[in-house]
Formats: sequence, structure tokens, C-alpha cells
Amino acid sequence: MNSELQTTSALLEAWPAMTPEERLEAFERIPRAEVDDFFLELPPRDQAALILALPAGERRIWMRLLAPDDATDVIQEVPEEERAGFMAMLGQTARREVTALMAYQEDDAGGLMSPRFARLRPEMTIDEAIAYVRRQAQSGLVETVHYSYVLDSEQRLLGVVTFRRLFSGQRDQIVRDIMRSELTKASEDMDQEQLAQLFTEKHLLAIPIVDDTGHMKGIVTVDDIVDVVEEEASEDIQKIGGTEALDGRYLEVGFLQMVRKRGGWLAALFLGEMLTATAMGHFEKEIAAATVLALFIPLIISSGGNSGSQATTLVIRAMALGEVRLRDWWRVVHREFASGLTLGLMLGSIGYIRILLWQSLGWYDYGVHFQIVALTVACSLVGVVLFGTLAGSTLPFILRLLRQDPASASAPFVATLVDVTGLIIYFRVASFILAGTLLK
Amino acid sequence: MNSELQTTSALLEAWPAMTPEERLEAFERIPRAEVDDFFLELPPRDQAALILALPAGERRIWMRLLAPDDATDVIQEVPEEERAGFMAMLGQTARREVTALMAYQEDDAGGLMSPRFARLRPEMTIDEAIAYVRRQAQSGLVETVHYSYVLDSEQRLLGVVTFRRLFSGQRDQIVRDIMRSELTKASEDMDQEQLAQLFTEKHLLAIPIVDDTGHMKGIVTVDDIVDVVEEEASEDIQKIGGTEALDGRYLEVGFLQMVRKRGGWLAALFLGEMLTATAMGHFEKEIAAATVLALFIPLIISSGGNSGSQATTLVIRAMALGEVRLRDWWRVVHREFASGLTLGLMLGSIGYIRILLWQSLGWYDYGVHFQIVALTVACSLVGVVLFGTLAGSTLPFILRLLRQDPASASAPFVATLVDVTGLIIYFRVASFILAGTLLK
Repeated sequence: MNSELQTTSALLEAWPAMTPEERLEAFERIPRAEVDDFFLELPPRDQAALILALPAGERRIWMRLLAPDDATDVIQEVPEEERAGFMAMLGQTARREVTALMAYQEDDAGGLMSPRFARLRPEMTIDEAIAYVRRQAQSGLVETVHYSYVLDSEQRLLGVVTFRRLFSGQRDQIVRDIMRSELTKASEDMDQEQLAQLFTEKHLLAIPIVDDTGHMKGIVTVDDIVDVVEEEASEDIQKIGGTEALDGRYLEVGFLQMVRKRGGWLAALFLGEMLTATAMGHFEKEIAAATVLALFIPLIISSGGNSGSQATTLVIRAMALGEVRLRDWWRVVHREFASGLTLGLMLGSIGYIRILLWQSLGWYDYGVHFQIVALTVACSLVGVVLFGTLAGSTLPFILRLLRQDPASASAPFVATLVDVTGLIIYFRVASFILAGTLLK
Repeated sequence: MNSELQTTSALLEAWPAMTPEERLEAFERIPRAEVDDFFLELPPRDQAALILALPAGERRIWMRLLAPDDATDVIQEVPEEERAGFMAMLGQTARREVTALMAYQEDDAGGLMSPRFARLRPEMTIDEAIAYVRRQAQSGLVETVHYSYVLDSEQRLLGVVTFRRLFSGQRDQIVRDIMRSELTKASEDMDQEQLAQLFTEKHLLAIPIVDDTGHMKGIVTVDDIVDVVEEEASEDIQKIGGTEALDGRYLEVGFLQMVRKRGGWLAALFLGEMLTATAMGHFEKEIAAATVLALFIPLIISSGGNSGSQATTLVIRAMALGEVRLRDWWRVVHREFASGLTLGLMLGSIGYIRILLWQSLGWYDYGVHFQIVALTVACSLVGVVLFGTLAGSTLPFILRLLRQDPASASAPFVATLVDVTGLIIYFRVASFILAGTLLK
């Protein structure tokens, strides 16, 4: 084994790149005093794989080490047929908690929730409340004491007390008088992305989850939200790049899954891009008559694609962060129209100057009509960049309206759309400007 | 004013889309009992703008409401010339803390740090420790009691005690015996992105920040990390889309800044893309001799661009999450070679069938040599997709090696690079296959 893997933190760092066999071997060499903490720091997928790789007799202690929400995550990572066996490894209380948590969708608030939160009754005095929280902490039944939740006798959530409030109260005050009853809560089926937005807006360390009738089911703590935010950003980034979101880490995803996730989109884009060949077919006569036009095809269509990629990624991200909503579409279109026109004029001017420059320096001969060829290229660039910008910025809105993920308006998708339209714009502009000179 | 803005949470939701005047007006209508909480939930940028908009006499209470790390963020958002005035609004203790925090870079661990953490001495008994933490909480000097940090008389960090450990200890045990002395810490100048990775790896609620000599300077809590993770993901997404990262929310960034951030990259890409016109110039004779070749130019170069976009975004994200490191480059290249070849063969086959199909159905006439034209397109697609995939996956490594941000290997950048190379590959393949038939 590699000598740099001798400390557990070096091992954790190298972990993602190791094979299953190397992992098992390394895991079994970790000193007894450090192995628990090491195990708890692994992601659920790796914890599940490790337990599966261990002999049956050694599995139980690892499952029992996990808090109920983490045990639930691990069980959701093991194959269907192994799940009952994993459940049987748990203690009675934990098994009941895990069974309740398993009912939730992984991507819902309920799936992130822990049933271990500090509870108080409204009629307790501050001193009683502190002693009670302390007892709950001692028995390992709370994830955080930052907030204690005040429940009535039927487990309905009445309010929340922060530790600061609890510790700074007078000993004879009662909980009801110091609790805050207007508080942020979430329902069990709230999507994890929305829940993450709630956390960033409110800057809370935990949010209570309640059912329709106001009964408290558990809490979600902010440390789990960091993972959600990273996961959602990864999904969006992969989609923007024109791939279906991967199910795991890049180096761990199987070759077949990788090719499938990429090949599907790539083939779909390819079929769309075939329309460019069709469009070009319509202009074959023009190309034959004025080959010089063909020279600028890649330049023009890619400028449209690039400006479209910019616009779509900006809007997709702003939507994901809740900065732009459906009702803002008009402001966005307005803004992007101005941006697209400005950027198009800029690129058009550069293109115009480039052609005149090359011609006058004798670097290339665009023929006697080089000035109107330059004008054709410049005007087409303005049109294509403007179209690309508008298409890129409106597509995410259309997808959201159709209840699809706006991130599917990926950079390659927008580029493909703009390629076809860009060709049509270019040849229409050319027919118009070059009629009577290069084109009849 | 809109009637749906009557509750503060509806107001918070509408806030990003409101003008400064609407904000001030709405803020002043919030009932006294709710306005403090509302103010604390705003991002620092908006807090600063609000305070600046208020009359001088009303400013102080808002600044004094803020914890020192939040006050620091606000002061960093106000114009240079206003900063002294804002400092003067703070109380003496807070002013000292803010001055210390201002010394750190905003993107460093030090810039996220709060000096308000729970402290213990190693020789305290558990009972003394609980009473001491309680007193610190009462005076508002701690952000979280989840961890208490054990310091020696010179403020050097010796260990950490979780609240659970503290509450479940025996009353006559001393802190030294229950503290954990091997703990995760970070230095003041650690980059915030690395710090965020540390949080996700270790699943901690707070990380202590120490200087070179082991003195504890403060803590960073996980709720601040959620913002960091979102901010870093936004930066990466914007770069991947081919824009410089924006300095604020999409709808709030000024028009000029927006055009500058996009125009710079767009112009640079345009200059690169001009090489396509140069490359095409070299093949003008081939195009004139076989116009049919021009029809497939957009199809071929965009397939290369799309496969390059996929590869670069996957690798960029995997690098940002620490799943792929520099030393993994060979595994990545190996993997991407296989993916690129598979995807290229797939698209090549589709392209081949498409041309034969159109020809045999009589939808388009590619001439008598349609079969070798189809072969040329298919072989070029394999080459271009393979090249695009390899270029897209290796560029982020090269940028990281040059100590640049891998996310700058944006989808449009890779597409531009592949466009030029794609043309060369296409015409080289064509010269080879079509020599003696369509081309002499």
C-alpha cells in the first residue's frame, strides 16, 4: 500500500480514486481508534459498498454506528434484495425510525430529515427545559441543540426556542413566553432544491418538517443542505454541457452508463444538426455561384452558438437560484434584446474590418465584390448573434413553462438550434445584398 | 403597493425584483415586530443598500443589530468613502472585531469567520463548563454551542467538545478528559472553495480557524458555506457558458457590466473562430470542385463542438468537487478516448445511413459518388468527435497545470477550438478518400 495513505485524512482524500479491493484492504488497516470516525465521514454510497464487501459477521457494528437518517441513506444505496438484511442489523428504535424515513422520496425534504430533534413542552420552566434538553442530548436523541422545538401533547409544532434564548432566559420564565411561534417550516414533500433555497434565504441551521396537520416529523440540518446544493449544481452543470446528469462521481460511473448518458443527447443533437445539411442543400446553387460565401459559414453559425450559450447559462443559473422567475420573462427578453444587439454590432464590426483588412493587406482575395461580401457577413452576424441571444434566453422560460428543467436548454442544444437558423439568416441576407452582383 | 406583499415572507420573495425605491418604501411599512428578523434575512449587499438609503439618524440601530461577521460583510459592500461612517455606528467591542475581520480577503476562510465561539479551559469540570458556555450564550458572544473549543491560557486551540459530549459527561470529569484533541481545522488564508470541500468531506457544523502558531482566531459555520457553494457553482456555470463570472444577481447587474463580461469572451472567441475562415480559404478549391462537401460542414464541426462541451463540463465539475485531481489525467484521457471513439462511431454510422437513405429515397441528390461522400462524412465524424472529446477533457487539466481556473475551458471555447481542427480533419479525410473521383 502507498505510504502516503497512512493517515486517515490522506486516505479519505485518495478514496474516490481507489478500486473496491484497495478500499477494503485500506479500511481494514485503519487503527481501531480512528476507524469509526473514518467510516462516518464516507458518503452513503461508499458506506454501503464497504458493508457489502465485509463478511456477514462484521456488518452489524457499522450499521449501528449510523444515525437513522444516515442509515436510511445507506439502505437506499444497497440493492433491493439486500435491504431487508440491512434493516435487520439495526436496533429496534433505529429500525422503526428508518422504516418511517424510507417512505420518503430521496429528493424530498422528508428524505433528508432526521427524527432526532430537541423537544420541549410549552409549560416547562427554563430550568426544566435546559435539564430536559440535556437529558435528550445525553441519550443521543438530538442532532442539534441550536433549536429546541416546542410541541403540544399531540406533537403539533407550536414554536421554537434557540439555545441562546433558552440560556439567557430567567429561570422562572416558562417556555411558552420565550418561544417564537412564527417560524419557518417545510412540508415533507417539498423538493430538496426549494428547501435549499429556503435555507439560503433564511440563514437557518435547521428547518422543522411538518405534515399537513401541523405535526412535527423531524428536522433537516444545514450540513445536509450543502450536499444538496452541490448535487443540484452538478446536475445543472452536466445538463448545460449537454449530458444527462450522471448518477455518481465522474471516475466511478461505469463506461456504459457514461456513453449512454452522453450518447443519447449527442445523437439527438446530431439529428437536429442534420437540418443544417438540409438547409445548406437549399442554398447549394448560391454556394456554387459564390464559393466565397462558404468560407464564413463556420464563423457565423458559431458566433450565434456562442452568444446563445452565454445567454442560456446565465438565465438557467439565475432561475436555479430563484433570482429570475417566470413572471420576469419580459424584463429578461428586453434586456437580452439590448445585449444581443450590442454584441452583434460589435462582432459585425470586427468581422467587417477583418475582411477589408485581409483584402487590402493582400492576405486573401475575396474577389472584386469584397466590400459587399464584408457587408453581408457583418449584417448576418448582427442578426445571428441577436437571434442566438434571444433564443438562448427564452428557451429556459419555455422549458419551465412546460414544467421541464430549464437546464435542459443546454449550450449544445441552443447552439444546434441557432446553427440551422443562422444558416438561413446568412443566406437570406446574402440573397438580398448580393442580388445582381455575385448572385443572380 | 401590491397586496400580495403584505407578509414579510412574500416581501422577501419579491425583493430581488424590486427597485431601490420600492424596497425602501416596503421596508418602512413592515410592522415593528417583524422588521428586525426581516432585515437579518437580507443578503449583505441589500442590507448595505438599505442602510445607505435611510436617513442618517436611522442607520445606527440596523448596523448594531448585525453580528460582527455580518457587519463586516455589509461594510465591504458600501463604497470606500462611506466605510468610516459605518464603522463609527458600531459599538466598541463590535468595532474591534470588525476591524480584525476586515483584514481578511473576502474569498478566504478568514473572511467568512466569526470571532464568536464558545470557549472552555481544559481544567474546568463539566458542570463549570456548562455554566460557562451558558454565560457566554447569554451575553450573545457565541454563534453555535454545538462545539465548544478548548483553549490554553494563550488562546492556543487544544481540542473540541461537542455539546453531546459535554451534556453526557459526569459532573466531576474535567474538560481535558472528554475533549477530542485530533480535530479538523483550517488556516485563515485557506481559499473558501477548499474550505467548502472540507465541510462536505467531514460533515461538520463548524470548523475552527487557527493561525500559523496554533492560536484560534474564530469559527466558520456551515450556514455560511451554503452561500459559498452556490457562489462557486454560479461562477463555474457562468464560465462554462462562456461568460466572465458576474458580480451580482442577473437582473441587478448593470447593462454595461453585462455587455463587458460577455463581450470580452465573445470577441476573443470570434477572433479564434476567424481561423475557420482562414482554414476554409485553404480548401476553397476543394469546395468549388465538390460543393456537396460544403453541405456537411456545419454538421461535422458542431458534432465535434457538442462532444467537446460534454467532456469539458464533466471534467470541470469533477475537478471542482475534488473527484478528479491533476494526477488522474491519464485515467481521464484513457476513459475519454474510449468514450470519444464509441460516440464518434455512433454518430458516424447515423451520418452514413442518413446520406444513403436520403439518396435512395430521392430526397436529395448527392451526385454519382454519394457512397464515398457518405464514407467521407462518417470517417470525419469519428475523427472530429474523438478529437473534440479529447480536447474537451484535457483542456481543464492544462489550465489547472497553468494555475488557471479549469472552468475557463468553457463549452464555447472548446467548440471554437474544435471547429478549426474539425474543418482540417474533414478536408484532409476528403482529399484522401475523394482523390481521383470528386477531387483531383
